[in-house]
Amino acid sequence: MPSTTPTRPGHHMDAEIGEQPSVWRRQLATGRPEIARVAAHIARRRPRFVQFVARGSSDHAALYGKYLVEVLLQQPAGMASPSTMTTYGSQPDLTDVLTVAVSQSGGSPDLTRALEISRRCGATTLAITNNAGSSLAGTAEFHLDIDAGAERAVAATKSYTAQLLILHLLVDHLRGGTGTGAEPLPDLAEQLTASQDRAADLAQRLRAAQHIVTTGRGYSSATAHEAALKLMETSYLAAQGFSGADLLHGPLAVIDAHVPVLAIATAGRAGDAMDPVLARIDEVGGEVFRIATSGNPRHSAPAFEIPPGAPEELVPLLEILPCQQLALNLALARGNDPDSPRGLNKITETL
Amino acid sequence: MPSTTPTRPGHHMDAEIGEQPSVWRRQLATGRPEIARVAAHIARRRPRFVQFVARGSSDHAALYGKYLVEVLLQQPAGMASPSTMTTYGSQPDLTDVLTVAVSQSGGSPDLTRALEISRRCGATTLAITNNAGSSLAGTAEFHLDIDAGAERAVAATKSYTAQLLILHLLVDHLRGGTGTGAEPLPDLAEQLTASQDRAADLAQRLRAAQHIVTTGRGYSSATAHEAALKLMETSYLAAQGFSGADLLHGPLAVIDAHVPVLAIATAGRAGDAMDPVLARIDEVGGEVFRIATSGNPRHSAPAFEIPPGAPEELVPLLEILPCQQLALNLALARGNDPDSPRGLNKITETL
Repeated sequence: MPSTTPTRPGHHMDAEIGEQPSVWRRQLATGRPEIARVAAHIARRRPRFVQFVARGSSDHAALYGKYLVEVLLQQPAGMASPSTMTTYGSQPDLTDVLTVAVSQSGGSPDLTRALEISRRCGATTLAITNNAGSSLAGTAEFHLDIDAGAERAVAATKSYTAQLLILHLLVDHLRGGTGTGAEPLPDLAEQLTASQDRAADLAQRLRAAQHIVTTGRGYSSATAHEAALKLMETSYLAAQGFSGADLLHGPLAVIDAHVPVLAIATAGRAGDAMDPVLARIDEVGGEVFRIATSGNPRHSAPAFEIPPGAPEELVPLLEILPCQQLALNLALARGNDPDSPRGLNKITETL
Repeated sequence: MPSTTPTRPGHHMDAEIGEQPSVWRRQLATGRPEIARVAAHIARRRPRFVQFVARGSSDHAALYGKYLVEVLLQQPAGMASPSTMTTYGSQPDLTDVLTVAVSQSGGSPDLTRALEISRRCGATTLAITNNAGSSLAGTAEFHLDIDAGAERAVAATKSYTAQLLILHLLVDHLRGGTGTGAEPLPDLAEQLTASQDRAADLAQRLRAAQHIVTTGRGYSSATAHEAALKLMETSYLAAQGFSGADLLHGPLAVIDAHVPVLAIATAGRAGDAMDPVLARIDEVGGEVFRIATSGNPRHSAPAFEIPPGAPEELVPLLEILPCQQLALNLALARGNDPDSPRGLNKITETL
């Protein structure tokens, strides 16, 4: 009964972080025919608008999906508020709408109910889960299995990036591609997951931090939000994730020399757009730890380096890896078990 | 030159909080003919989907607007990410889309550019600002002036609730109403703004807090986010706002006996849906300060009482008032000047 064998703190999270390259390889090797089939069905419906429903880490994957739809498909997209349907009883006209529910477990009743109502209101419905037998998968017209394998740590890691990859493959197929842009990712990720030295070092520096700000723009705003959630879940500190633009519209006031900032500034248009944000953080005296692309002369001595070689829209799969490692190492440095955070269960059921 | 007369810290914010009932009276007395005219134009376009673009407090007003559209108009709605158009160059097909930009100053270049691109891409465009001469107002096909008068404190108060009221009046006209539901609001607000005793008392209790969580569901999730922003801007503490459902999907782990929780649980469907959230916060030992409707036996001894008498969808205009007062009083108790928070200017320009 291996599931009851006592394990060291963070054993599952550590293992699941390390599994990510092989999960992606499996998705790329076996997942594409089904994605192509679902994409062809969806394309025939000609959706005019895509809405996502999700919670927690899956909500950040959905935010990434929203950027993919807006930028690569050039279609309007939004995050639906499930409560408008479940609590307020709204029955919107969803003709020409594609509703995508993203959930690791597929087990939260409010998402299932929101998807059920969406389907009844005319939407094409797609569930993206890690459990083909879940209520959410059964409610949707279409289902894509992220095939990440059982995830045992409460803090989602491999299921998050597996969701990102499925969303990217889906959008790429919807625009006529076959997902070749993602093929370098597993090798690039292995360069990142092979060592946790930098994450362990930074965890020691941040060991006593009570408050941290994470920030990124564009696709990387999903990374900023997800990194903050990982730090909250595993290390219980006040981690606040903001898009770089939103940060300047008020929250900047919280930053001083005592509030470290984890800034995602990988190469590309979003990284360039971080320049004025980083300048303002510098003016108010914040200590910035950067995640930047290796060899970018604009960011010397970043805290974490991301190997170049992936298209900008796929870099969020790589950027989050050192953030996951930081969350794991910070939790361990603080004496927490990130596999079983206080107050949380693996499946959260909200109504 | 009254603008250069030295004033006591928080003078402007205090005055602007107190002005809100009279701003709303003016909007109700004089604003409705123009709202009716704009609503009639928009209705003729038969938009299928509403997208909002906004930053900061205005983004929280837009979130409230999104709930109004989803619940009262039963239409899908979303928050657009301006960077998809301004940074990534997306030119989405926005036929049948209504794009609503919300901004106090109307002066942030990224919003103006996003609205300009939206208009060129086929959207019906509406700007809601406090400055009819702003670039945002000039770019939109339609403009509604919130007519809140000059706002001098950096932390937005009267412009926020004036935006909420304009959004509600617009949506009510779009569904065939004339805004009568809002008429009791100024009198109800005066009951709240007349005294700051409770806010001053709670500010003393929270004087040393470094971290606070705010939470609410449905329409009140906008209140939770805006209350957190006010506390960040004026008091520099790590204030994290979550929808009640999102809170349970991970962030709950940050709550312990040292992290106070400001929970919005006013009477109605959203307040009822907070029951399981409050139960979980209680289980993890969080100290909860509630904003509840006066006389509701389910919430004895709330921190702040909201007088009954407004429809549920308008209660966010009232709920935020004690939060503004708390932010003002907490800033003063900590020796800050909430009129001029560190690191911020009244008009934030993001690209």
